[in-house]
Parts: sequence; C-alpha cells; structure tokens
Amino acid sequence: MQNQFDNKAQAWSARFSEPVSDLVKRYTASVDFDKRLALFDIQGSLAHADMLAAVGVITQEDKTAIERGMARILEEIELDRFEWSLDLEDVHLNIEKRLVELIGDAGKRLHTGRSRNDQVATDIRLWLRSEIDIAIQLLGQLRAKLATLALTHAATILPGFTHLQVAQPVTFGHHLLAYAEMFGRDAERLADTRKRVNRLPLGAAALAGTTYPIDRERVAKTLEFDGVARNSLDAVSDRDFAIEFCSAAALIMVHISRFSEELVLWMSPRVGFIDLADRFCTGSSIMPQKKNPDVPELARGKTGRVNGHLMALLTLMKGQPLAYNKDNQEDKEGLFDSADTIRDTLTIFVDLVDGIRVNAEAMRSAALQGFATATDLADYLVKKGVPFRDAHEAVAHAVRTCEAKGCDLSDLPLNELQQFHASIGDDIYQVLTLEGSIAARNHIGGTAPERVMEEARRILAQYQ
Amino acid sequence: MQNQFDNKAQAWSARFSEPVSDLVKRYTASVDFDKRLALFDIQGSLAHADMLAAVGVITQEDKTAIERGMARILEEIELDRFEWSLDLEDVHLNIEKRLVELIGDAGKRLHTGRSRNDQVATDIRLWLRSEIDIAIQLLGQLRAKLATLALTHAATILPGFTHLQVAQPVTFGHHLLAYAEMFGRDAERLADTRKRVNRLPLGAAALAGTTYPIDRERVAKTLEFDGVARNSLDAVSDRDFAIEFCSAAALIMVHISRFSEELVLWMSPRVGFIDLADRFCTGSSIMPQKKNPDVPELARGKTGRVNGHLMALLTLMKGQPLAYNKDNQEDKEGLFDSADTIRDTLTIFVDLVDGIRVNAEAMRSAALQGFATATDLADYLVKKGVPFRDAHEAVAHAVRTCEAKGCDLSDLPLNELQQFHASIGDDIYQVLTLEGSIAARNHIGGTAPERVMEEARRILAQYQ
Amino acid sequence: MQNQFDNKAQAWSARFSEPVSDLVKRYTASVDFDKRLALFDIQGSLAHADMLAAVGVITQEDKTAIERGMARILEEIELDRFEWSLDLEDVHLNIEKRLVELIGDAGKRLHTGRSRNDQVATDIRLWLRSEIDIAIQLLGQLRAKLATLALTHAATILPGFTHLQVAQPVTFGHHLLAYAEMFGRDAERLADTRKRVNRLPLGAAALAGTTYPIDRERVAKTLEFDGVARNSLDAVSDRDFAIEFCSAAALIMVHISRFSEELVLWMSPRVGFIDLADRFCTGSSIMPQKKNPDVPELARGKTGRVNGHLMALLTLMKGQPLAYNKDNQEDKEGLFDSADTIRDTLTIFVDLVDGIRVNAEAMRSAALQGFATATDLADYLVKKGVPFRDAHEAVAHAVRTCEAKGCDLSDLPLNELQQFHASIGDDIYQVLTLEGSIAARNHIGGTAPERVMEEARRILAQYQ
Amino acid sequence: MQNQFDNKAQAWSARFSEPVSDLVKRYTASVDFDKRLALFDIQGSLAHADMLAAVGVITQEDKTAIERGMARILEEIELDRFEWSLDLEDVHLNIEKRLVELIGDAGKRLHTGRSRNDQVATDIRLWLRSEIDIAIQLLGQLRAKLATLALTHAATILPGFTHLQVAQPVTFGHHLLAYAEMFGRDAERLADTRKRVNRLPLGAAALAGTTYPIDRERVAKTLEFDGVARNSLDAVSDRDFAIEFCSAAALIMVHISRFSEELVLWMSPRVGFIDLADRFCTGSSIMPQKKNPDVPELARGKTGRVNGHLMALLTLMKGQPLAYNKDNQEDKEGLFDSADTIRDTLTIFVDLVDGIRVNAEAMRSAALQGFATATDLADYLVKKGVPFRDAHEAVAHAVRTCEAKGCDLSDLPLNELQQFHASIGDDIYQVLTLEGSIAARNHIGGTAPERVMEEARRILAQYQ
Repeated sequence: MQNQFDNKAQAWSARFSEPVSDLVKRYTASVDFDKRLALFDIQGSLAHADMLAAVGVITQEDKTAIERGMARILEEIELDRFEWSLDLEDVHLNIEKRLVELIGDAGKRLHTGRSRNDQVATDIRLWLRSEIDIAIQLLGQLRAKLATLALTHAATILPGFTHLQVAQPVTFGHHLLAYAEMFGRDAERLADTRKRVNRLPLGAAALAGTTYPIDRERVAKTLEFDGVARNSLDAVSDRDFAIEFCSAAALIMVHISRFSEELVLWMSPRVGFIDLADRFCTGSSIMPQKKNPDVPELARGKTGRVNGHLMALLTLMKGQPLAYNKDNQEDKEGLFDSADTIRDTLTIFVDLVDGIRVNAEAMRSAALQGFATATDLADYLVKKGVPFRDAHEAVAHAVRTCEAKGCDLSDLPLNELQQFHASIGDDIYQVLTLEGSIAARNHIGGTAPERVMEEARRILAQYQ
Repeated sequence: MQNQFDNKAQAWSARFSEPVSDLVKRYTASVDFDKRLALFDIQGSLAHADMLAAVGVITQEDKTAIERGMARILEEIELDRFEWSLDLEDVHLNIEKRLVELIGDAGKRLHTGRSRNDQVATDIRLWLRSEIDIAIQLLGQLRAKLATLALTHAATILPGFTHLQVAQPVTFGHHLLAYAEMFGRDAERLADTRKRVNRLPLGAAALAGTTYPIDRERVAKTLEFDGVARNSLDAVSDRDFAIEFCSAAALIMVHISRFSEELVLWMSPRVGFIDLADRFCTGSSIMPQKKNPDVPELARGKTGRVNGHLMALLTLMKGQPLAYNKDNQEDKEGLFDSADTIRDTLTIFVDLVDGIRVNAEAMRSAALQGFATATDLADYLVKKGVPFRDAHEAVAHAVRTCEAKGCDLSDLPLNELQQFHASIGDDIYQVLTLEGSIAARNHIGGTAPERVMEEARRILAQYQ
Repeated sequence: MQNQFDNKAQAWSARFSEPVSDLVKRYTASVDFDKRLALFDIQGSLAHADMLAAVGVITQEDKTAIERGMARILEEIELDRFEWSLDLEDVHLNIEKRLVELIGDAGKRLHTGRSRNDQVATDIRLWLRSEIDIAIQLLGQLRAKLATLALTHAATILPGFTHLQVAQPVTFGHHLLAYAEMFGRDAERLADTRKRVNRLPLGAAALAGTTYPIDRERVAKTLEFDGVARNSLDAVSDRDFAIEFCSAAALIMVHISRFSEELVLWMSPRVGFIDLADRFCTGSSIMPQKKNPDVPELARGKTGRVNGHLMALLTLMKGQPLAYNKDNQEDKEGLFDSADTIRDTLTIFVDLVDGIRVNAEAMRSAALQGFATATDLADYLVKKGVPFRDAHEAVAHAVRTCEAKGCDLSDLPLNELQQFHASIGDDIYQVLTLEGSIAARNHIGGTAPERVMEEARRILAQYQ
Repeated sequence: MQNQFDNKAQAWSARFSEPVSDLVKRYTASVDFDKRLALFDIQGSLAHADMLAAVGVITQEDKTAIERGMARILEEIELDRFEWSLDLEDVHLNIEKRLVELIGDAGKRLHTGRSRNDQVATDIRLWLRSEIDIAIQLLGQLRAKLATLALTHAATILPGFTHLQVAQPVTFGHHLLAYAEMFGRDAERLADTRKRVNRLPLGAAALAGTTYPIDRERVAKTLEFDGVARNSLDAVSDRDFAIEFCSAAALIMVHISRFSEELVLWMSPRVGFIDLADRFCTGSSIMPQKKNPDVPELARGKTGRVNGHLMALLTLMKGQPLAYNKDNQEDKEGLFDSADTIRDTLTIFVDLVDGIRVNAEAMRSAALQGFATATDLADYLVKKGVPFRDAHEAVAHAVRTCEAKGCDLSDLPLNELQQFHASIGDDIYQVLTLEGSIAARNHIGGTAPERVMEEARRILAQYQ
C-alpha cells in the first residue's frame, strides 16, 4: 500500500478523483505559519504516545520509537535542517510524515485516538500559555522600571492635565504610576485568561471523542494543563481563548498607545518635558536636524494591528456552526502577530523607560502656567465654611481677574484676594504653592510624594 | 450670589464670556443616556456623604439632610416626576441641583472632596457590577435549561458535523452541552471582569486626589467594593473595565450567534431537525405560509452591534493622554447597549430553549446519510493491528465503493467488506451501528449517553 | 373576517398557534427607531400606488383615496398626533394599518405587488440619499470656512511638524487647506456612494419579483432614482450601500479626529497657538480655572462610534445566505446614528472654524525652536553642486553645533557656517529665514503664501 | 566623508550619539514587507529623475546614469540577486544605496527635491493602482463565469429562501445573478476608489514642498496619474486611499462569505443541491469518508482578516496630528494582505464556479417542500378583487389545513380550496405550479427564465 504522505494531494486519494490545484494547495496550506508550533506539536505528541502506551493502545516499544524519532525531528528543526513541505499542508502532517520515515509503523500508530482537530487545538494552547507567561513577565519588568523611575521623581512637579489643560499639580512619579496600574491590570487579565487557555482539548478527536480507552487526565497532567475540556464538540471548535487573549493584548496596546502619545507630546519642543535616548529615535532622510520618537509612534500605530486581529477573530467565529470548520484555520496568523507585537513592544518599552531623560524645570514651569492651584483656593474657602459651589464661583472670578492681569493667583496681594472672599487670610499663600498643593493630597491614590513613594515601593516589592 | 445651577450654561460663567450654543449643549449633554445611572449616583453620593460626616468635613446635620433630600429625589425619579434638564448637562448636576433646591447649603457641601470625574467613574462601576451579576445569573439559567434538555436527549442520535458534512454520530444532548460549556466560560469571564470593575475610584477627585482628609476605605466598604483604585490619575481615566466587559459580551454574542445559526439551519425544511415554538417566530406580510425563526436570526445579527461597541471603545481610548478627556463621555452608550443586548438576548434564550421541539427521526435519518461510522471501521481495523494510516486508506476505498453503489457501509456483505481488509470479521456490524458508535466514545468529554447524562447532571448541580 | 392589524401579534394568526411573548415583541420590534423613515415610507407608497393605478392593478379611485389617506397620516405624524404601536412592529405596518382605518379596502390594496422586504429597502435608500445630500452640503460649508480662514492666514508662519518635531516652516493657511483636501475627498466619496444608494429595489417584492404587471421604471422616475436594481434577490438582501456609507462616514470622522487632536493640542497652554471661542468649551465642576475644548474632544471620541457601526454592519452581513433574513433589521440603528453623528459634528465644526482665534506670535516663535530651516540650508548646498546626501550630512553637523551652543543656524557667523561647507556664502542668511523658506516652496501644493491663496480661492470658487 | 549608507544606523550619525539597538532596528524596519514595492519605487524614481533633468536640477548625464543604474537594480531584484539589508531600514534606502554604489554622485542627486515621505506615498499608490486593476479584471471574470452558469440554469427551479424557510420558487440562474450584481458593485466601487488613489503626492517632499523648481504635472503625466495632490501636508499624511480600498475589499469578502455560506450549505448532505469539484475540497486525517468544502470555508473565514485590516487602518489614523508620523508605517502590511487576499480568493472563485455540479432534482424537490406558491394563490385572489390583506389571511388558513393533512396546496381538490375563498376557480392549478410561479415574475429583476437569460447576456456582453 502506498504511503499516503508521499504526496499530500493524495492523502485522501482513495476518496478523491482529482488532486487539489496548486493555487488551492497554497491557499489552504498553513505550514508557512503554523510551523512555529512544531515544538509544542512534538510535546503534545509525546504526551499522547505516553498515554497510549500506558493504556495499552500502543506498545512500550512503539512509545520508545516515537520518542527517539521525535528527538531526532526536534534536532532537525532546531538546526534548521528539517524540510518543510507545502504538499503536506500543515505542521502536523509534516512532522508525522517525517516520523514515519524515521521509525516506520510505530509512527503511523501515533495518530490513534486523536485527530488534527484536537491536536492543533492542543498545540496552540500550549504555545499561547507560553506566550502569556512571557508577557506577564515583561509586564512585571515594565512595572518595575516605571516604579523605579517614579521613586526618583516622586516629588518632581508636573502639571496634571485634563483636556490637555492644566488642572492641578501632580508629580511625575505619580503620573508614571498610573501606567504601572494599567500594566498591572493587564497582567491580572492575562493570568485570568491563562486559566481558560490551560485546558486540554486532546481526546476530543475529530469532534465526538474516540473509541480507544484513553486517559485524558494523564495527558493533562503530563502537559501541566489545569484540567480537561469537558465536551468534545466544544473542545475542537472553541476559539474563545484566542479571542480573550487578543482582547487582553488590545488593552495592553491601548495602554502603550496612551503612554506613547504622552511621550511624543512631552518630547515636542514646545512642551519639552523629556528627551528620549537616541537609540529609540531616528532621523530624517531630508531634514538633517530631526530626531524623531519613532518607537513610541510606531508602537502607537501598532494598536491598530492588534485591534484588527481581535476584530478578525470575532468576525471569524460569528455564526459558525459546530463543530470544526476550515474557517478556523484563520485563527492563527492574527493570534501569532498579536503575541509577537506585545512581546516586541513590551521588550522595547522595558528598555525605553530607562531612556527617558526628565527636564524637571520645563515640567515645573508648565505647572505654573494654568492656575493649577485654583482648586486649592476653593478647598481653602470650603474649609473656612463656604459651601463648595460658592467657593468654586468665587475662585472663577479670581482666575478671570488674574488672566486679565497676566499673573498667577499667588501674585495677587492679600487685599485683592480678599475681594473675592472675605475669609481669605495670610495662610493662603502656602496653599497656593505647587508643593503645598501636592503635599496636601495625602491619601491612598493621592499625588503627595510620600504616597507616591509608598506605592512605588509596594510595586517594586512584587518583583523582588 | 447667583446659583450656578439656575442655568448650566452659566455654571462656569465667571470664567466664560459667552454661553454654549444650543447645538453644542445638545452635542455635549449626556443626561439623555446617563440618567439611567441615577440610582447608582445617589447610592454613591450617600456613601460619600456618610464618609464626609465620619471624618468631620460635613456635620451630621448635613448628612441627615442629604439623606432626606436624596430619598425624596429617588422617589421622584421612581414615580417619573423628576424633571430632567438638558441645561444641566448630566445626571450628576441634575440631581445635585435638585438636592440644593430641597435642602440648601448642605446640598452644596456634598460635592466637597470629589469631582464629576471620579463620581461618574464610581456610578458606572456600580451600575456595571449590577449588570454583571444579572448576566451571570442569566447564563446560569440558560446552562440549566440546556442541561435539562440534554438529559432528555442524552441518547438522541444527531449527525455530528464538521464542515457541515456528516462526520460521526453524536447525541443531541452532547451537542447542547457544548453550548453549556461556552456559556459557562462566559460566566467565568464575567466573574473575572467583576474583580476589576469592583474597585473604588471615588477619592481621585478631578485627577490628583483631594486636600480633604477623606477615608476611601470606608466608602469602599459601604459600597461593597473589593478595594480602592490606587492611583488617582488612573482612577479617573481608566475605562479598561468597560472594554473588558464589552469583550466578554462580544464572546457571549459569538456563542449566541453560533447557536442561532444552528437553530435556523435545523429549522430549515430540508434539515428539519427541530421546530421552534411559535412565540419566537413571525410570519410574512406577503407569504402566508411562512414561519420565520426571527429571534435567533435577530440575535445573530446583534452580534455585530456588540462587536461594534467593543471596537468603538477601543478606538475611543487609543492614544488618549492622561487624565480625563471629554472623549470619555462616549464610553457610555455603547456600554449600556451591550449590557442591554446581552440581558435581553439571554432572557429570551432561557425561554427559547424550552420552545425547541425535537424531530429525532429527522436527526437519525440524517446521521445515516454520510457514512458517519466510517471512523469506527477504521478504529476497528487498528484494534486488529492495522496501523492507523493504513486503516484510514482501506476505509476510504470502502466508502468510495458504497458511494458508487448508493449504500451504507453496514449494507455491504461481509465478503465484500473483507476485500478492503482481510481482518474484518462478523463483529463489524455492531461497530457500524450508530448506537455502537456513540456508546464506544465513553470517556470524559465523549458523546456516550452515560457521559452526557453525567455532564448534564454535573451542570445542573451547580444551580440547585 | 377579522382585520389582521387589530393585533399584530395575530397578523399571521391563521398560521400560528400562540402569540409572540411581550419580550419577543419588544426584542423584534423596530418601530421605535424606524419611525424616522415615515416620511420616506409614505413617499415610496405614493409612488407605488401611482404605478399600480397606471398599470391598472388598482383603480384611480383607490389611488386618490390612498393619496388622501397618506396626506392625513403625514399631517398626524408632523403634528405628533400619530399613535405608534409596538404591537404593529414597524413603521410600515403602523402606517398601513392607519391607512386602512382611514380609507378601508383601498388601503388593503396598497401592498399589492410589494413586500416589506423591498419596501424597507426603498425607504432606507430614500432616507440615506437625503442624508448624503445634507452631508455633502455641510462638507462644502466646512471647506469654505477653512478656505476663508486660510486666506486670512496664507502667510502666517506655523511650524510644520512631522513626528511632533519641528520639520519645516509652513503657513497656518496651508495647514488648514490640508483639511479642506480631506473633506473634499469625503464629499467625492459620498457622491460616489450616492450612485449605488440611488437604485430602486421596489418591485423585488419578498425576493423573487411579483406576478403583477408592475412598471419599475416609472416608480424609479417618480422617486428620482438613477435606475432599478436588476436582481430581486439582491435587491432585498443588499446592504452594501449602508456599509459603504458608514465607511465614508468613518473617514469623515477620522479627519475630524485629526483636526480635533490638533485643536486640542494647539489650545494646550504650552503650545498656545489658538484659542477656541467659549461657546465650544466647558468648565469644570471642581477646578474653577478650567476652560476645556469639549467639542473637539467629544468629536474625536465619536470616531469610535462610527468605526463601531461600520464593524457592526460588516459583522452583520458576513456569511448571510440569501435572501432576506431578520438579521438585517439590525442595519438601521448604527446607520442612523452614523448619519446623525456626521451631520451634528459637521454642523458644529462649520461654526467652530469661525471660533478659532489665532496666536500668530506663538506659532512663529515655535517655528524658531527646532531648526526649521535646516533643509533649506541643505538645499542651498545642493544648488551649489553638493550631492544631496553629502549636504544632508554637513547640515546635521551644523545643527549639532548649534544645539550645543543653544543657538539657531542663522545665529552662526559666516565663518563658522563655512566650516561645515566651504561653498556657503553671504546669501545664506536670506535662505535661513522662515519667510525665505516658505516663499521658496512655490509650486502646486507647496506652502508659499501665493500658492495658498490660489488654492483657497480655488476652493471658495466651488461654493459660490 | 563617510558614505552614510554604509551603515544605516549611522545615516544620521552627525546628529545622534548612540545607534539604534538591534531590537529597535528590527522593530522599526519595514524592508521585510515593503520590498514588494521595489518595482514601483524604481518607476517613481525614474519619473522623478526625468523631471529633475527636464527642469535642469540634474544633468542629462545624471539622468542617464540613474536609468542605467536602475535597470541594473531591477535586473538584480528580478533575478533575486539583490541583497536586502535590514540596516538600511526600508526599500527606498536599500535601492538608493545600491544606486550610489553603482553610479556614484549621480545616485546621491536622485533624492533632490523629494523625501521618503512623498516617495513612499507615491510607491504605494502606484502599487495599489495596479492591484485595483487586477481586482477589477478578476471581478469581471467571476461575473462572466456566474452569468455563464446562470444561462445554463436560467430555468432550473430552486427554492427561494428567506429566513432559510422556503419562500417562493426562483431559478438557480437568478440566484447566481444576485452575486453577479454584488461583484458588479464591487468593481464599480474599486473604479471609484481608483480615482482617489491615482493622484500624485510626489513633490510634497517631507511635508511642505520643495525649493527646487519641480514640475509635478510632468511627473504625473509620466506615471499616468490623473492629477497631483494639491496640498503637500495632506499629500504625505493622507492614507484615505488605503482605507477606502480596504473598505471595498471588505465588501468583496462579505459577498464571498455569503456565497461561500451558501455553497457549504448546498453541499451539506441534507440539502444536496450541489457538489463541488474535488480540487476545492480536502479529506480528513481521521474520517476516511469526508469530503470537505475547504475553499469556501476558508474564504468565509478570511472575511475576518480583511475586516480586521480595515479596522486596523481606521484605528491607526484616528487622532493623528499632521503631517507624517511613524505610525503610518503600519499602513502597509494590512493593506498588502488585503490585496493579496482578494486577489487569491477571486482567482480561486473564478475557477470554483466551473467546479459547481448542480443537482437540479434536489433543488426542485426542496422547492416543493414549503408551500412555495402560497403567494401565488394570494396574488390570484387579489386579481379576482380580494383586497391583498384578506387574500393573505385566506391563504394562511389553507396552508394550515395542508400542513395538518401533510399535502401541498396543489393537492387539495377544488371544492376544498374554494372553502378558503369562493372566488377560486379551476385555473388555480396552473398558478400553483413552480413553473407557473416563476414564469409569472416577468419584469426587470424578476426570476422569470427569460428575464434571467436577458440579464445573463447583458452581463456577458460587458466582458466580450
């Protein structure tokens, strides 16, 4: 009998009267992108073979042969000597065919009790679990870098903006820790996603389970899955985990895009709050003076890519009847690219935070430009017994007067200030300083330097 | 001094030289859609007032007055007697203005130590937490209904499809439990999302915290939050929780769309597996014979709506600098509509499952139409010692022969079957029955009736 | 015989054994949002009645009665006296039922030769055509405003940014005209979309056409359609026009978001290039000094909404079998909201351009901050015969020296400049001025003031 | 002076104190994907050189040298001998560096009067124009195949479905022509998009135009552009054309997904309307009997990919300030993949239509299964003077009776039919046949065979 792997176009030849055309072969083949699953495919196959031997479906000799063959294949792949064939469609058939070449009939027995449907679902979960672990680690490194910089700048005054208008003074450290919070939630989200990724589909076979006396719990244990998928139809058709991962990745990129937007803005000469190390910037082919913050800009742009992959996967799964359909082959490229994008981006940002040079003077002078302590004046009045809404109105009048005069609130003499409210006293000038303002916001989550240091240390403690 | 609430266009009049135009007022107002937060706004305000009194920022008399005023406002809203004003822009100012009317200066003191930025973030988290709890409950009800129907049909044969081609026989109960798995993951995901929703932003004030000696832990406890947001800038600008909820909602709708696709298909006369109760169907204005499965079709269509809202929120947050920007007002309508859509859809589907009438005969006859037990024949050969890949090839030849003859595998006499492989014996006919096929898939996740019953009971036990 | 309109739940009672439940009724009803099509529904019905009479399917008396009835209904709707009923599901049945009440059997004959499937497709195309015409007009007004402001500022120096770094000087007028180009393409795109919107589906009936001797060309002419849809199945299931419109709307919002981003940035105090009129801004409930550019921020946020609607429609139509499915009812809300969003946003922006107050001094001083004329120096060298790439390198050295000295290129004495390249002469100082730089870019599309004026006048001429 | 191309990391070395890191180099490089623009980059450079020579900026000798160098480079690329370097970042610098190697200083002069910003914008428009032309041609071929098959099946009865319920009989030819309409609109849309793609950005230089006396009209003419971009800032930052193309591509894929959904459904054994040629199908690794419609399924899945790219581009451009930002580098991969996807998919579908084998008997028998001619009976009554709404109700009663009896309307004897309405006569039986029903829908767009033939011929005539 002809070995069906000799020509994948004839893999189901007994049933088919013409081979797939070359374009169809290329259109439907996945080996170009799914070969990155090879390591995990082998890992899954070894666990499957181990179980088949344990329950007596294959012999110990078969199992040993499979292990030997797979070790050889792994080596060939790592040394880049493995010959990938488009004719063999995907990573699974490429490896299996090579295995049969190397070890004969034992290789043909490996596929007993499984199908490519549950096999690929297993591979991709193993791969994604590994990517999630990497991403969580990178998020931790990034948070630690942000917290370290925040410690240094726990008292560096920065204008806090709302609507890009100066609102109230904050510290640069406090601002950085806002991002540490975001990336912290991202890590939490990935950890939650991991729980749903880490369930074993193997054993679902094509869709209905298998007639062999398999031991799925054993396979799950070998592969360190948290549990087994409890319905075979669901196991082969579920791509929730991919969508959930892409959602988490999209949020990571949203946070990166916000940070990038600020980095680009802060580095613009009119703002000038920071400079980025040259290694994250490029010049211009035509304007010799340019130093462009390419990395944050490109990262911001990559938000679109990950949003797009999420939308692609949601579109893909919409209205798909059970169980497996070929549509699902489209789950991989977007997922791979999403994982690559967050991995590369986070890796670069871990380094980039080190490359931020702070211009504290520019930050401080900007904080003086927009009546940043007006709220403090209002609060002062409230503490003197003025209802908040009335205090707010009084300060608005004061600001208007200052604007007309071109001065700050703290530049008005006491008697002028008192025209806006009689209860204003000498102690107001301390309240109107930037330092007084930030120090007064001294509660959990507030911008007071001691709080910022406390939070930064709390975060750093998580990664030591 | 003029009461700033008399005319919201003059709320910041001291600072502004012209009022907003009517179109701008309408364009920027949110009261039409955010008034649904009223209950939660009041709840948040009461917890804030309680805390202000506890730390001595307002008096006990103020607190009591605020409680009295809020009770009155709540009653007015519930009786639909509250006058909502577009001039007052949003739910917060509408309620606060009414409070000041009712109780005077105490009402003006309520806003001490907070801002609309942290107030709206608190309101929306309280509301969303409540919606999540409802959705989790509905998912549970739906799973229970699916499991109940699955118990009844644990042994009802259905062709298991891959690629809409008959693959292997499964049971209808097994198929229904695949959806129970999906909706189970949805509930898990919402529970994970809830953890990140349930953190208190109040106390962040506009962006930097407040100068009042607030006790955020007390407010968190009163409102049953799991903890406090630990960075004020992040607290007012974070909309992750909304995006995460929309992602979870999108996955729920993806699952609904898959189930709906199948319901519509199963009810098509050529398939005829089920009929839906008339109360979920409509007729035609022109074709008197029509009975259309409107509910699953519309539900399938609503997948788009929720995907769209998710994309809207991701677009919204992309590249936004800290802290609050007016863009964020756009976070609500899509979020509200996503929550409404899953609530309505799940409520209807809980009822709809009861309205599924099964045509077991049609299911069974369909399972006989596509060589559903071909895999069983291959497995049989493997158990006789034939390598899997060779068995596969032998069966493919047998199928081809049957196709040409227009018969099923089980219709071939033994001597003909043996032409495809000599090891085929008399016991093959039991293997080739549908019942034999499903009974043999008897492992966790397999389609064997006893496994289906076990799973259905496991699920039902969660909701008793 | 019972009038089927008395209770829509019984509209197909002869075929159905139970009414739809209240929740299903609410879930599937569209009248709450499709009643805005009433005017167009009546317009379409009148054209249909006119044709039915012309071909002899109904009598002239019937036609006259229908016209009389519709006139009355139109009046009732305009006076807000029409009673919309959820039981009657949609705008079509509501109007038809009222017509039958008013004029009896003639009203029942109106639906001859059509179905709700082609009726709603016609209504929505009539409505969308009208919205497109309005949007094109608004885009024209906005372009005219931009061109007018550009004329005033044809020579006002602005730093041209790439990567938010100062690149080369441009004029503010030139910058504004970039937006006029974008909005011009948007209008072109809408005009192209209109061609595909403006085709008559009526006559397709439910899906297959009708057995009545209808004259579709006559209806098309009456309703000013450009042609008739040439396939009945396509006519009732095509929603391309809605998706194409939403794509065009999404691009409009992308342009609005870019302009908004710049307005917000320009108004930030560190940049200070412009101020927006107070009527487009709001204050803060807590920070009395704030003046926030709410309108551009909110408009930027609304980009998400329209992107979301586009994605919703694409998801909706993906994989839908022919012909009409109930999913399609979901085509409307997103489409309506997209049209409303661009109409409101463009209307406000037409006014907002008038409210831009330019701070030319801030613009000019910013242009001096980033070696904006470095390219001019490189070009100067090239014109002296230095290969471009070498000139670029020489200027980079000069910039580096200036940065170290804290001066501009034009501040270096000639002998120092000559150290970077010997061919630099006395005439270099003219080249290094901002005015010299912009004046020299004097070709189609260039920033030279005379070119800007020419372009502005060309645009203005289109709208006079 | 060092040649800056020797090491791209030092291309702006005079201005930078450290090179970009390897990861940043890889992160920001585009050469891996933009090298596919090489042909168009050379084409654009040649037109630019021709113009520079014509206006006297470079000499004729330089121009000739550039042409010679480019011919050599083109040959190297075509023979796959060109060495692409990641260090040189993108296609433009790779080619330019090689040109300088080949021809020296003349090569350095080529970049005079342009920038990579307008260069890449030109390249990508040239490339996209070419892709659009190919796509339009493929759409034409697909339409011609559909029309050819429709001619063959102009009278082949198929049940027309709405809601996947049998609605009215149509012909298979008519159904196919619905897709010809969709793909026809797609071609129109691409032709409209082409107008906006085909405008020349070159001459915009970095963002402001150039100081050289360039002749943009000449370049436009050489490159067959329809006109020149009229604003330099817009020219380098506009990506509308890419988004508009992706929108058009998304609609093509929506249409493909609808057709695919039907093909998969029609090939399902319970439906059995068609069979697809084996060359578009694959088998199963585990189920030997399977023949899966992989191509339509995968094509349906690829809808997600193109929707995703559209969303990615819209996200990318949202809120980007003028002029060029590095974010824009992200415009390419999604655009390339969208173009590849529609090109491959359309190419396969042109062939796939030939591979559709029709089972006319199955179609016909399905049309008899759902009272497909009920509307004809209602129409019959109307023509006898019964108001439409009353006729509808009478037929509903008749259908209900038939359902109970398990027969078709045409199976009822005349006296029974007359119980539903007295005006029913002997001539009703002709009306109730499938052939009678389709023949009666004989107007533009109707399903009558002669109309279908007319339309098919009209379409075919466009491509001869």
